[in-house]
Amino acid sequence: MYSTAANAELALLLEVAGTPKPGNVDRERDLPDLRFEHFLAGAVGARPGLDALADPSVGVGEGFERAVAGMSEQSGGNTQFGALLVLAPLVRAAATGPCTPGRAREVVAATTVEDAAAFYRSFDHVDVFVGDPPPDAPDLDVRRGSAAVPAVRDRDLTLGDLMAESADRDGVAAAWTTGFERAFDAADDVAAADGPLADRAADAFLALLAEEPDTLVAEKHGDAVAREVTERASDLREAGVSVATDRDAVDAFADDLVDRGVNPGTTADLVAGALFVALEAHGVRP
Amino acid sequence: MYSTAANAELALLLEVAGTPKPGNVDRERDLPDLRFEHFLAGAVGARPGLDALADPSVGVGEGFERAVAGMSEQSGGNTQFGALLVLAPLVRAAATGPCTPGRAREVVAATTVEDAAAFYRSFDHVDVFVGDPPPDAPDLDVRRGSAAVPAVRDRDLTLGDLMAESADRDGVAAAWTTGFERAFDAADDVAAADGPLADRAADAFLALLAEEPDTLVAEKHGDAVAREVTERASDLREAGVSVATDRDAVDAFADDLVDRGVNPGTTADLVAGALFVALEAHGVRP
Repeated sequence: MYSTAANAELALLLEVAGTPKPGNVDRERDLPDLRFEHFLAGAVGARPGLDALADPSVGVGEGFERAVAGMSEQSGGNTQFGALLVLAPLVRAAATGPCTPGRAREVVAATTVEDAAAFYRSFDHVDVFVGDPPPDAPDLDVRRGSAAVPAVRDRDLTLGDLMAESADRDGVAAAWTTGFERAFDAADDVAAADGPLADRAADAFLALLAEEPDTLVAEKHGDAVAREVTERASDLREAGVSVATDRDAVDAFADDLVDRGVNPGTTADLVAGALFVALEAHGVRP
Repeated sequence: MYSTAANAELALLLEVAGTPKPGNVDRERDLPDLRFEHFLAGAVGARPGLDALADPSVGVGEGFERAVAGMSEQSGGNTQFGALLVLAPLVRAAATGPCTPGRAREVVAATTVEDAAAFYRSFDHVDVFVGDPPPDAPDLDVRRGSAAVPAVRDRDLTLGDLMAESADRDGVAAAWTTGFERAFDAADDVAAADGPLADRAADAFLALLAEEPDTLVAEKHGDAVAREVTERASDLREAGVSVATDRDAVDAFADDLVDRGVNPGTTADLVAGALFVALEAHGVRP
């Protein structure tokens, strides 16, 4: 029996193994200075933090911070910050009862100011691409890392509160406010499909990308590019394209996004969450 | 800081990520019914056993058996039995002092009959390709699994004794009798090289294959094929071929071996050991 933390680690590995995942590092593609092997090391390094997230005596924020610190012990930089942020409440929910959207919501609702402080500290460990903070709250800029913790305490913000404030511009934060419903829905599809799990991961990525613009792409390249990428994914899906039916079409999309430096990383983060739910709640195995 | 067990798990992942590794599953190649994702799951599943191997209160044989049991919780079958057998004494040595050939020899010398019994039980968890037992000892056929344990006890054989008996026809057993010197030498090369660690793993594979015929190939296809494969690897090395200088040449070799079903798996097992030593003793990181 895989432990809950083992399933989370395996979800990180299967996520990066899924190919083609247009614009992202995958089994067949590296980005400049960010390689497949950095993701392998990131997943193994995150394991003690994932174990902590499965331990109800450790705060969700602290477990997340430990996972990020361990993930960062490789030279590629940020590999799985967003994926770990998706996994954190899901792992806690799964380790303490059924892994359902309702229970994930409960985990989010139970987060504290200390969890928020730990979340800010996690930015000390690795450079994460994030957009600007709200104009009325420059002191809450996550890029300040632990320096922002006093402001977080002053405002008495829980980690759930912080996520709710970013939900309109960050797909991971949005997942926190919606019981991770997109990840759970994608997990249903992964579990219902057959064939190699890595291929199902790639199909889940395309489906999620077709559904909503990727917020990391929107922050880096603007809303128009994010919409264009989603429209292209949607066109492929509507034409019945999947990894099994027309891999070349997905590969062409993937190569184009890599060439343009367009990286729908938030969508990949949700795939990691979907894979975890498929492994943990549906009992799917490679 | 990665734990010793984490380094062992990462070594398993980097081994399978190294490409091209002629004849083996790697980042770019699956075999029929044995896919890359099975190796990812095998590595994660082995982790509790690797943790046990790092715990001196657990027998080396028992830790190995746990690692094999966990590795086997995926549908591809045997992914890393031989690699775990290489790693077992190395992990124990590293967890209890410096990771050196001398200390690995001490771990081997200290193995017991109980370790041998656990080794036999590990064959209950997964089908492993092995050659016939010595004609004078059919009751010691490892394929009998736990059914052979009474015979092992009757003969008072330690796990080190068993390995010594197979050393002339099994490269992993030979490593047990020689302080894992080929793995340590390959680790020196991995640590001295630069570039992506997965590429260094692929180069280490080619170098080890060029050095000695693979015993799994010899058992499955005969000595002539094993010699031919090693000569081809040797010719490539003598021509200065590496993954960095002429990847196409190594890819052609890899494709040919996969097409012929020739799988130098024992050499890959030694690469996993070399990667572990590089990570653990040389402090190499992706």
